[in-house]
Amino acid sequence: MTGMPLDHVAIAVPSLAQAIPMHEALAGRAATPIETLEAQGVRVAFVGAVELIEPLTPDTPVGRFLSRHGPGLHHIGYRTSDLEAELARLIGLGFAPIDRTGRTGARGHLVAFLHPASTGKVLIELVQPERALSAPSP
Amino acid sequence: MTGMPLDHVAIAVPSLAQAIPMHEALAGRAATPIETLEAQGVRVAFVGAVELIEPLTPDTPVGRFLSRHGPGLHHIGYRTSDLEAELARLIGLGFAPIDRTGRTGARGHLVAFLHPASTGKVLIELVQPERALSAPSP
Repeated sequence: MTGMPLDHVAIAVPSLAQAIPMHEALAGRAATPIETLEAQGVRVAFVGAVELIEPLTPDTPVGRFLSRHGPGLHHIGYRTSDLEAELARLIGLGFAPIDRTGRTGARGHLVAFLHPASTGKVLIELVQPERALSAPSP
Repeated sequence: MTGMPLDHVAIAVPSLAQAIPMHEALAGRAATPIETLEAQGVRVAFVGAVELIEPLTPDTPVGRFLSRHGPGLHHIGYRTSDLEAELARLIGLGFAPIDRTGRTGARGHLVAFLHPASTGKVLIELVQPERALSAPSP
């Protein structure tokens, strides 16, 4: 079985302005332009397969994560070509969805999250690229 | 610039016996056989690009991580074809190494860690595959 490949890993940061040049230097590659996701309350940029996420305000999920845990690894994303089918499969196996259907996330992709209580305390995102060709290579 | 691709993301777990089937179900793919790394005090298995790490005893770095934080995302690994050169480049940029030279890690690969204090609180591993062809696809 091939299954879902890893799409990205996300890091919660207090400041993209500081985190972007640091992660560019670390990985030796340029970040994507910053994208604002009002619905999720974050601004994000990608350095390869690493997504940097900054909360728009403290009273957002990522803002509360930073208050509780400080900066650090926040979630991982798996790539799928059929998010609805994958979500149905995982719910059938007993995984608890945060989203029962896909919504628009970063890069215009369709995304849905699983609840960490059902995944060993790791927040998991499913990502269906808007077009198959737009999937980034890690 | 192309830079280093993401090699893996590691999750600290109290029990591989529980975590492996859960992550196999989640990703829809089979885990590698369990490998014991006495020097690092861990047992590990990979489900695609996700490394599951279980401490051998509580008084190991991963054991202490679990005591303090509970299960969860632990570190990310970047892949390089020349670990020593990459480490020298990063030290030159001000990143603080935990390892000043490569040591043998999971899958027989050459690895070295950077200190999270210098990387925005994210533990970063550099991984040089033993052979270029043995690098896993995510």
